Amino acid sequence: MESLSHHDVAVMLVSLGALLAVARVLGEIAQWLHQPAVVGEILAGILLGPTVFGALAPEWQGALFPSSGPVALVLGGLTTLAITLFLLVAGMEVDLSTAWKQGTTALKVAVVGMAVPFAIGFAAAWTVPRAMGVHAGADPLIFSLFFATALSISALPVIAKTLMDLNLYRSDLGMVIVSAAVINDLVGWLVFAIILGMLGPGAGQEARIAVTIVLTLAFAATMLTAGRWLLHRALPYVQAHTRWPGGVLSFALALALFGAACTEWIGIHAIFGAFLVGVAIGDSSHLREQTRMTIDSFVSFFFAPLFFASIGLRVDFAASFDATLVLTILVVACAGKLLGCGLGAAWGGMSRRDAWAVGFGMNARGAMEIILGLLALEAGMIRERLFVALVLMALVTSMLGGPMLQFVLGRRKPRRIGDFLAARRFVPRLEGTTGREAIRELTTAACSGGHCDAAAAEEAVWAREQTMHTGIGDGIAVPRARLAGLGAPLVAVGMSEAGIDFDAPDGEPAHLVFLVLTPVEDDGAQLEILSEIARLFRDRARLERARRARTLTEFLAALKSEPPRAGGPEAETA
Amino acid sequence: MESLSHHDVAVMLVSLGALLAVARVLGEIAQWLHQPAVVGEILAGILLGPTVFGALAPEWQGALFPSSGPVALVLGGLTTLAITLFLLVAGMEVDLSTAWKQGTTALKVAVVGMAVPFAIGFAAAWTVPRAMGVHAGADPLIFSLFFATALSISALPVIAKTLMDLNLYRSDLGMVIVSAAVINDLVGWLVFAIILGMLGPGAGQEARIAVTIVLTLAFAATMLTAGRWLLHRALPYVQAHTRWPGGVLSFALALALFGAACTEWIGIHAIFGAFLVGVAIGDSSHLREQTRMTIDSFVSFFFAPLFFASIGLRVDFAASFDATLVLTILVVACAGKLLGCGLGAAWGGMSRRDAWAVGFGMNARGAMEIILGLLALEAGMIRERLFVALVLMALVTSMLGGPMLQFVLGRRKPRRIGDFLAARRFVPRLEGTTGREAIRELTTAACSGGHCDAAAAEEAVWAREQTMHTGIGDGIAVPRARLAGLGAPLVAVGMSEAGIDFDAPDGEPAHLVFLVLTPVEDDGAQLEILSEIARLFRDRARLERARRARTLTEFLAALKSEPPRAGGPEAETA
Repeated sequence: MESLSHHDVAVMLVSLGALLAVARVLGEIAQWLHQPAVVGEILAGILLGPTVFGALAPEWQGALFPSSGPVALVLGGLTTLAITLFLLVAGMEVDLSTAWKQGTTALKVAVVGMAVPFAIGFAAAWTVPRAMGVHAGADPLIFSLFFATALSISALPVIAKTLMDLNLYRSDLGMVIVSAAVINDLVGWLVFAIILGMLGPGAGQEARIAVTIVLTLAFAATMLTAGRWLLHRALPYVQAHTRWPGGVLSFALALALFGAACTEWIGIHAIFGAFLVGVAIGDSSHLREQTRMTIDSFVSFFFAPLFFASIGLRVDFAASFDATLVLTILVVACAGKLLGCGLGAAWGGMSRRDAWAVGFGMNARGAMEIILGLLALEAGMIRERLFVALVLMALVTSMLGGPMLQFVLGRRKPRRIGDFLAARRFVPRLEGTTGREAIRELTTAACSGGHCDAAAAEEAVWAREQTMHTGIGDGIAVPRARLAGLGAPLVAVGMSEAGIDFDAPDGEPAHLVFLVLTPVEDDGAQLEILSEIARLFRDRARLERARRARTLTEFLAALKSEPPRAGGPEAETA
Repeated sequence: MESLSHHDVAVMLVSLGALLAVARVLGEIAQWLHQPAVVGEILAGILLGPTVFGALAPEWQGALFPSSGPVALVLGGLTTLAITLFLLVAGMEVDLSTAWKQGTTALKVAVVGMAVPFAIGFAAAWTVPRAMGVHAGADPLIFSLFFATALSISALPVIAKTLMDLNLYRSDLGMVIVSAAVINDLVGWLVFAIILGMLGPGAGQEARIAVTIVLTLAFAATMLTAGRWLLHRALPYVQAHTRWPGGVLSFALALALFGAACTEWIGIHAIFGAFLVGVAIGDSSHLREQTRMTIDSFVSFFFAPLFFASIGLRVDFAASFDATLVLTILVVACAGKLLGCGLGAAWGGMSRRDAWAVGFGMNARGAMEIILGLLALEAGMIRERLFVALVLMALVTSMLGGPMLQFVLGRRKPRRIGDFLAARRFVPRLEGTTGREAIRELTTAACSGGHCDAAAAEEAVWAREQTMHTGIGDGIAVPRARLAGLGAPLVAVGMSEAGIDFDAPDGEPAHLVFLVLTPVEDDGAQLEILSEIARLFRDRARLERARRARTLTEFLAALKSEPPRAGGPEAETA
């Protein structure tokens, strides 16, 4: 077997390591800023690719990320594998059964929400192709079809994540949006696959194009009916007769690879096969949460960052940046989607406010648009200039989704106690043995930053404590008060080895005392913080870990150990 | 960026899919036969490679697994990545702190257990190199050093798995074996790295060899001291300030890639860096079980099977098979290890029986030997003929480990109720409403295969039931009896929606009734089965799932959903 030289292996490992590390660090930063991780991951590629690193130190960049030769070939193969597995995960998130049950409203939103932007996109690309970034020599029909499709897809993962962040995922509104996005996703990919088929091995020969399209539709139909049924039957067998969790894991991955090979053979792209296998397998109630999560974590935190960062290696974002085109695409894309989804929602009987919310929710393009653009670029349907505009449009619409939904619905992100803690408000060893003493220590700590008057706060909390005790059981107490003139909530945490009596219903002394001070005019803050504390510490393992923490960092790490599905990783990358 | 053609991508996906699927199916079969998975994975490669598939249909084999060109290059890069990540996991299993605490016995076993086979191996390779499979033109010193190292390593993962299977992992004997294997592993890899350095970029130039060796030792020393300390400090920060579980996951993977690149750059192989990063990170108590498990599952069930199967693609096992050499290597290897470890154990004050057990335990070579052999083959230290002999020796010693330990210690594998169930002994809907009726239905089901007399069994169980009721609480009852003339234990399971009173301590009627019939002369069987039932259903989620099962397959699948660390995946591949 042909193999890489010593030097090639070293370059491959360093470049993979650098891509992964930079992509993940920037992805994390993006998330701190309440943006989708993909924004940071794309930026990582722009930094490491020709746009920045290549402009500053072209030799170094060329040595580390060669654009031809064996290392480039291996990286190319690896990113193809990465995107294939990413689409498997994206497919697994498509919950067809639930989408189906949402009935006509979701269907109306999906259909009108695709048809309108498709029509607008097609019309624009057909009538003023130059303004839409067409390149010389492009086939007008294929270009217009692609452009229309590009404007009409939505990104399910980023939409799901936005809704989870706002606690809307399980609401009626959220289910309509997600279900419409599911249908939208599925149809959008099929249409794109067909367009890709028109460019495939038989380009120009109508009979072969027809064969490709028929095969594509047949494959999709088979996977969504017989394939789905078979997988649902097969999963319990695999789980019963193979080692857990490895059997199902390998089963899903091998199937995705075969499905991908199948669509690649048909003449469209590998990712469609993986996506359809994902849909078929993800729909089965026999697929366990843990299997889903293992695939998900590895794909979201290893393969996906590698893939998205590698995009920046291929394209020079500075050289291909065309501000007019970016703006045009952005306006046409937003207008089409808002109008389409808004009309669909209104037709489905939703209020005007909810219709706007649906429009902004569905407007997010996220990772899906980027993948679509990349495939079109590779297939020669578009050039770098339009690709860059599509990527930027995808990022901007994804970043706008959350804030616009909040604005339209007047919702805030639920507050987390982590946001209100600080090292100086963390007291690992309370000296007091009575509630009054503990409250004094904690109010002193809470007000040490100068945000409040410690004595007044202590009085207020103590007065509150005497009307009703704040031990909530399991060794936790939450003395609290609302203070006038406080800018934002303040939380202080204290630990007591011996325990302090806060008259809890279970009689347990408190080992973990949260002092919660909230602005008097902020109605929701206290309740939100209290319910978060209650929710967090229902988990005994977390409670134990939190009680053993000796620094704020350890304490925050303990809080983080959430059951991973809550707002979980499956929705975090795109 | 250079990229693969449509056709190349399809070939790559199919060959990856085929390697993964065949390797995992054969790996599962190997495990059913109580053999390490790696046996099946290697066999998969032999089937798909030139040895079998290539001999039967050379064109097809060449088309699917090309030995040169872009696809071969990508597969080569991917297997390098796979082995790097596999060694990260292997390193994470090395628990230095625990090994250290085992004190002198483990150290004596490790030192003598390496020194003796090393000496025997070196002497044999130096005096009769032809018999040991040397090839023309090999450097006698390097060959002898390699051969000696190859005979003196042990395979920690396969040893750990064997001990877990026999419930010996946490015993004193088990801890000595595991700790000795840990030290053995670490020293063995270092010695091999140094030998590899002697062949590295500066081969023949003594000054450069010295630099390589010094750098290797410096890297190892740094990782095991400062690196370990730093990682232990850094992990809580990463966990506190990044998304869970992705932050730590990417952190560990990126570090492994950088460590690997580092050792590749030094001139030894990438895997050493990944291994040492694994040791450093795995030793930290801040590394959470879930992170470990996610990396582990993905590596054990995706990357490792790909890697081990790919070995068979490179080497024709039939053409390079030399029976005399295989036998010679096997005898020399076993003799050296048994003698060395046995002497070490005796020196450490262990009984003769335990000393033999240590010897047979440590004798397993598993995946580690295969990796070592492959690197030596790639570096030109050995040729295919010896490589095949080493692989077969590794497989045979791994397969012998479990049975020989059982033989020496007189231990049996603990029996699992799954082994005694059958579809005809699964009664999804008990008709009876009293204990007597349920026992009648279940004894009828249990004896339906003709293994026992239903009426006699019913009488025996009912008599037993009247002396002491068998409801054990949580809605479970375990009526049972010992029967004369039964060849092996029989278990029947019945479910009752309404519940049947078996006088459980918690007063709950039984919804899940296990009828356990064991041979009268088999002392342990009943107790083992009872304690397994009790252990399994302490987990409420599993109990719920088991109660909802309507077929034996679903029921077995429910039992399988174990907390994954128990005999867990981390030890299953090698």
